[in-house]
Amino acid sequence: MKKPALNVIVPVGIEGRSYDIVIGSGLIERGDSWDGLPGATAAVIVTNSTVEKLYAQQLAHALSIRYAKVSLVVLPDGESHKSWESLNTIFDHLLAAACDRKTVLFALGGGVVGDMTGFAAACYMRGVPFVQVPTTLLAQVDSSVGGKTAINHPLGKNMIGAFYQPVRVVSDLDTLKTLPQREIAAGLAEVIKYGPIADDGFFSWIEEHLDALLGLEAEPLAYAIRRSCEIKALVVSQDERESGLRAILNFGHTFGHAIEAGLGYGEWLHGEAVGCGMVMAADLSERLGLIDATYSSRIRQIVKRAGLPTIGPRLGIDRYFELMGRDKKSESGDIRFVLIDAPGHAILRSAPDAQVRAVIESNTG
Amino acid sequence: MKKPALNVIVPVGIEGRSYDIVIGSGLIERGDSWDGLPGATAAVIVTNSTVEKLYAQQLAHALSIRYAKVSLVVLPDGESHKSWESLNTIFDHLLAAACDRKTVLFALGGGVVGDMTGFAAACYMRGVPFVQVPTTLLAQVDSSVGGKTAINHPLGKNMIGAFYQPVRVVSDLDTLKTLPQREIAAGLAEVIKYGPIADDGFFSWIEEHLDALLGLEAEPLAYAIRRSCEIKALVVSQDERESGLRAILNFGHTFGHAIEAGLGYGEWLHGEAVGCGMVMAADLSERLGLIDATYSSRIRQIVKRAGLPTIGPRLGIDRYFELMGRDKKSESGDIRFVLIDAPGHAILRSAPDAQVRAVIESNTG
Repeated sequence: MKKPALNVIVPVGIEGRSYDIVIGSGLIERGDSWDGLPGATAAVIVTNSTVEKLYAQQLAHALSIRYAKVSLVVLPDGESHKSWESLNTIFDHLLAAACDRKTVLFALGGGVVGDMTGFAAACYMRGVPFVQVPTTLLAQVDSSVGGKTAINHPLGKNMIGAFYQPVRVVSDLDTLKTLPQREIAAGLAEVIKYGPIADDGFFSWIEEHLDALLGLEAEPLAYAIRRSCEIKALVVSQDERESGLRAILNFGHTFGHAIEAGLGYGEWLHGEAVGCGMVMAADLSERLGLIDATYSSRIRQIVKRAGLPTIGPRLGIDRYFELMGRDKKSESGDIRFVLIDAPGHAILRSAPDAQVRAVIESNTG
Repeated sequence: MKKPALNVIVPVGIEGRSYDIVIGSGLIERGDSWDGLPGATAAVIVTNSTVEKLYAQQLAHALSIRYAKVSLVVLPDGESHKSWESLNTIFDHLLAAACDRKTVLFALGGGVVGDMTGFAAACYMRGVPFVQVPTTLLAQVDSSVGGKTAINHPLGKNMIGAFYQPVRVVSDLDTLKTLPQREIAAGLAEVIKYGPIADDGFFSWIEEHLDALLGLEAEPLAYAIRRSCEIKALVVSQDERESGLRAILNFGHTFGHAIEAGLGYGEWLHGEAVGCGMVMAADLSERLGLIDATYSSRIRQIVKRAGLPTIGPRLGIDRYFELMGRDKKSESGDIRFVLIDAPGHAILRSAPDAQVRAVIESNTG
């Protein structure tokens, strides 16, 4: 096996602005990871109570070479804290420390920290720069890329947010070594996603390398993250604000969001709900005659092999419909699903209620 | 005197997007004021408890021709309610009513309603369209134009917000007839502002027509609103995100914000604080040798004639400095003031503490 392909840089260009995703080992502690960022007096690291213990001092030390004042905001850990209250903790800190509009925020953590820090950066004084330092696989392959930021509302996930791009994403592979296996699997759900929606060759590659990925082998891991970021960056650069194409990135998310909301956020990990949601969306694609049973079964198998759930919770069919009707892709109450209509290709469309009911009946329990 | 120049349209172009400001009489109840807006199932009118009684039914009726569902969110009245709690009232309503991402919000009210509705529109599902329907003079000449939206934080005014442009501004002159005189004067503060910073001829025109404006005479009023919007639109189109030029629109606001924050938001009207702040900023300009005593005195006189305060509250000099240091224009603790350096021209710069102290000493008590 060759040396791991580390320190890969994936450029992302969106409406004239552009930034780099840097992928490699030991990046947090290296000073040159932070070269070329916007100058400012203050850097503020936002993290959670779990990640703080592991990487906050390392990052603070590396940033102290570049910024005169480096401070830390520690949020409680977990999706249930992706709320206005936690967001306000960031604002309270920024204002108490008299941070000006050049202050750079650093999101050190998983998707929850990244989404909240990005949204705080979008809103603080109507916008300050921020850097994503994702420490989970899910964040490295999905949520840190593309500029979607948000908090949850009691009535819906990610309902309050902004499209706001980071100035850089620094994905340190070493941080994945401290992740629980359950979170590795959840991250793989989003890696798997890119195959059926955009790159059938990548799907086959994942099937071949899944065990290596589960074992965190550096070279395949770096490749999986890089390819995921490339696909996402390409889609987002064509449709930042999800007027069309970008919606395909939500494969598995319509059913998945319903599962998360129905159980209460945090019960299942986001990636677990997406994994199960992909199985359901593949089944729906098959029932509508868009793909054959073999392809649908391949999706179910890879989700299962990754250690992700393939059977959704029994929330009740009406409850699924109600929760899916609140999805942001819905228009005028019409639920729109991301469906696979060919290997490596997805479309956004509605589906007859009868087929959706059948999918829920067959895939929950 | 000629017929009032009503139904004026001022186009605003910002980074490829553009929208119209429509100024005229009886616009709210006229169906054609709302022609050409984005189609949607739902329109949501956000207003406050005072304005609701006066115009909400009229607007709801006019919109019901175009939108299948028209609903109303009524916020408590006043700057002290420009808070996260009120903002959440809007989100709660939108989610409870299952509003999708095509829903159009209408901000019916003054600057507080406009800023909060705009920010809610910017954040709801990461952005839905909104229309400004300003019903105060201040909102018609200033806050409804240019896309600055925000809420206050206990530690600072407008600290949490977004740059987010409306799809249209509809300024119905008839709504000014129900405004208290104090609010007319407060609105005139922002009209007056445009003279010294951008158009010396307009400043002379205001001096000549101030009594007519205070008496709400239709033709001069329409002209003052139009000219104010034109100047603001020109400045904003060159610098939406306030990296430079746009800051000149904050003439009087550095001292003004300190007054508002020091007394507690809502004690003085925003326009009253800006009026007094302009007197202080003019005095500072004079002390720095940028303008002569005659010009500084003209600014003081017009503010006084408008019925606005020219003497700031005695908060203490250190307190003024502390509050001004939190201004969004500040960088690394360096307070930057908008100063007049020639009739009809403003610059952004810092000033020696001694002169700032002298200004506060001479103009408060």
